Amino acid sequence: MPDLSVELGARAYPIHIGAGLLDRADLYAPHLGGGAVAVVTNCAVARLYLDRLERALRAAGARALTRIVIPEGEQAKEWQTLDRVFDELLAARCGRDTLLVALGGGVVGDLAGFAAAVYQRGVPFLQVPTTLLAQVDSSVGGKTAINHARGKNMIGAFHQPLAVIADVATLDTLAARELSAGMAEVIKHGLILDADFVAWLEANLGKLLARDRGALVHAVQRCCQLKAGVVAADERETGLRAILNFGHTFGHAIEAGLGYGEWLHGEAVAAGMVMAAELSARCAGLPSAEVARVRRLVERAQLPARAPALEAERLLELMQADKKAEGGQVRFVLLEAIGRAVLRGGIDPALVRQSMAAAR
Amino acid sequence: MPDLSVELGARAYPIHIGAGLLDRADLYAPHLGGGAVAVVTNCAVARLYLDRLERALRAAGARALTRIVIPEGEQAKEWQTLDRVFDELLAARCGRDTLLVALGGGVVGDLAGFAAAVYQRGVPFLQVPTTLLAQVDSSVGGKTAINHARGKNMIGAFHQPLAVIADVATLDTLAARELSAGMAEVIKHGLILDADFVAWLEANLGKLLARDRGALVHAVQRCCQLKAGVVAADERETGLRAILNFGHTFGHAIEAGLGYGEWLHGEAVAAGMVMAAELSARCAGLPSAEVARVRRLVERAQLPARAPALEAERLLELMQADKKAEGGQVRFVLLEAIGRAVLRGGIDPALVRQSMAAAR
Repeated sequence: MPDLSVELGARAYPIHIGAGLLDRADLYAPHLGGGAVAVVTNCAVARLYLDRLERALRAAGARALTRIVIPEGEQAKEWQTLDRVFDELLAARCGRDTLLVALGGGVVGDLAGFAAAVYQRGVPFLQVPTTLLAQVDSSVGGKTAINHARGKNMIGAFHQPLAVIADVATLDTLAARELSAGMAEVIKHGLILDADFVAWLEANLGKLLARDRGALVHAVQRCCQLKAGVVAADERETGLRAILNFGHTFGHAIEAGLGYGEWLHGEAVAAGMVMAAELSARCAGLPSAEVARVRRLVERAQLPARAPALEAERLLELMQADKKAEGGQVRFVLLEAIGRAVLRGGIDPALVRQSMAAAR
Repeated sequence: MPDLSVELGARAYPIHIGAGLLDRADLYAPHLGGGAVAVVTNCAVARLYLDRLERALRAAGARALTRIVIPEGEQAKEWQTLDRVFDELLAARCGRDTLLVALGGGVVGDLAGFAAAVYQRGVPFLQVPTTLLAQVDSSVGGKTAINHARGKNMIGAFHQPLAVIADVATLDTLAARELSAGMAEVIKHGLILDADFVAWLEANLGKLLARDRGALVHAVQRCCQLKAGVVAADERETGLRAILNFGHTFGHAIEAGLGYGEWLHGEAVAAGMVMAAELSARCAGLPSAEVARVRRLVERAQLPARAPALEAERLLELMQADKKAEGGQVRFVLLEAIGRAVLRGGIDPALVRQSMAAAR
């Protein structure tokens, strides 16, 4: 059960990874402060894990315990839900020293993290991710947000948790499709930063999909290590951190084009990574044999390697709209080699079109 | 036109104070970054000063200029208004490098500052306060917030501006009642931190109310200096910063008891300061002659020195509710002497009742 740390000076924090951590009172105890705790979770996760978490929190010394259960799904990640969280926190008289605990996947973590960032101008919080996607990606790094009608994650804050407690045993109850979606981000971390890890994934993908705990602990640990390194170097995404968006420029366009919720985020990123690999072969010297490796890994993870039935022109438009909303030009994260990413702007749209066509 | 600075390390920022600064392109130029600017203001201030500000911003090199005009008054300081600001920012494709400029009083500054804190996870912003209250208090220190149905300023962030540009000439158009309300915070700064400044106020209150520019510049400058010192020592209000709430524990209860908007914030704080002075005489050794000085100064500033027609019990309840919402006990900022504040908890409610009665 090896521990990692995100090195952010005074805001450094540990990431605990293992099987059975949910019940470990000793992991919560150091963060309880005044003893008041509010757990934010969704109804599905509440049914499975909330009682156990609360038992552990009580054993750790939590006094007042407030439970706030939000609806499932990406569409819950908006103001209305957030306002309900504030309302319940205020009704329960939760003060500035209340510890917020986010128990769930990316939606719960992003929303509860943002609630923690702005409730009474900021309260401490813990991430207890229960999906693979959240364990390897969204719970680490302090990005929190809700969606706006005009764009995903447009309202948010950088707010680092006091700790991340990732119990891989909670992945036992994850739907196969969700597990695969998380695997997209696992593969991404390897592709942009660590060729050895990609080789390990090629050898161990079967074990991961079979939810072998040892393999899961290793994968989650390696991803968190890689992400923590990037975040420590560039907390607020002024440079390097952008490489974590590999596959995401295409992926976001796919999600927006299909309508959010049609494909899971990880599925869109998977298809987006294959497109990005094709583009890397055209502009960044990635050998075509390596493109094939990317595609094979995505397929073996039971993820879509092919773009959905959307016009290339439409995707291109969506990418530009996405970037224009942020006031910038379209930049792509490309691979020079497996394990080595670069950021490139000013790419000929014709090459982008070709890459999308090649990924069909 | 002497300049001050809020010393917060990498987030240190200047406060410019003078007459006619609104038109000074050179003050805006260093903060323009990419050149995109969005000004948030209210309809009354827009009519008076928006064209002039925009002219100066253009002269400073602003490219895209978005104007976002919100309704007047405290009731605008809530989510609906904030969401409209986000909507207009997104519609105008304002990116992460857009400079937000808050032109107006406390409501505009608090709301626009919070918008800047969370729009695309944080954009830079400038405070251009146009009320005395905002110039001496709310624009300095980085506290931003909106109200929640269950409490004032419950949702917010600490987000420091790049600079504060306080043009005392804009106070010419301020209603007399608003000028007096701002004076309450001016008096407060003296009472908690600077006996000499209190003596200066006693000598110069007439000039200030007559909007003598030299006197206004001096008062705004001294208040900002005092507040900047407190903020630099305790940015996130974990200790010392609480002394800035002198008169506010009573004041908030008065505002809540009368219904927000009935009395101006500064008016409630003024009556609250007299109550707090009475309480200081009972628990902190403030001589009764000094209580009389506080009362006289408040009265001369054309502010209410008497509590409104509310039952003492009701105010006491409201104070406790206010604190319980924040999860703590009621603590009072008291004066040991004029210019020397202390923070005290565990005060006998009987003494609080007596102090309220004495302030009638």
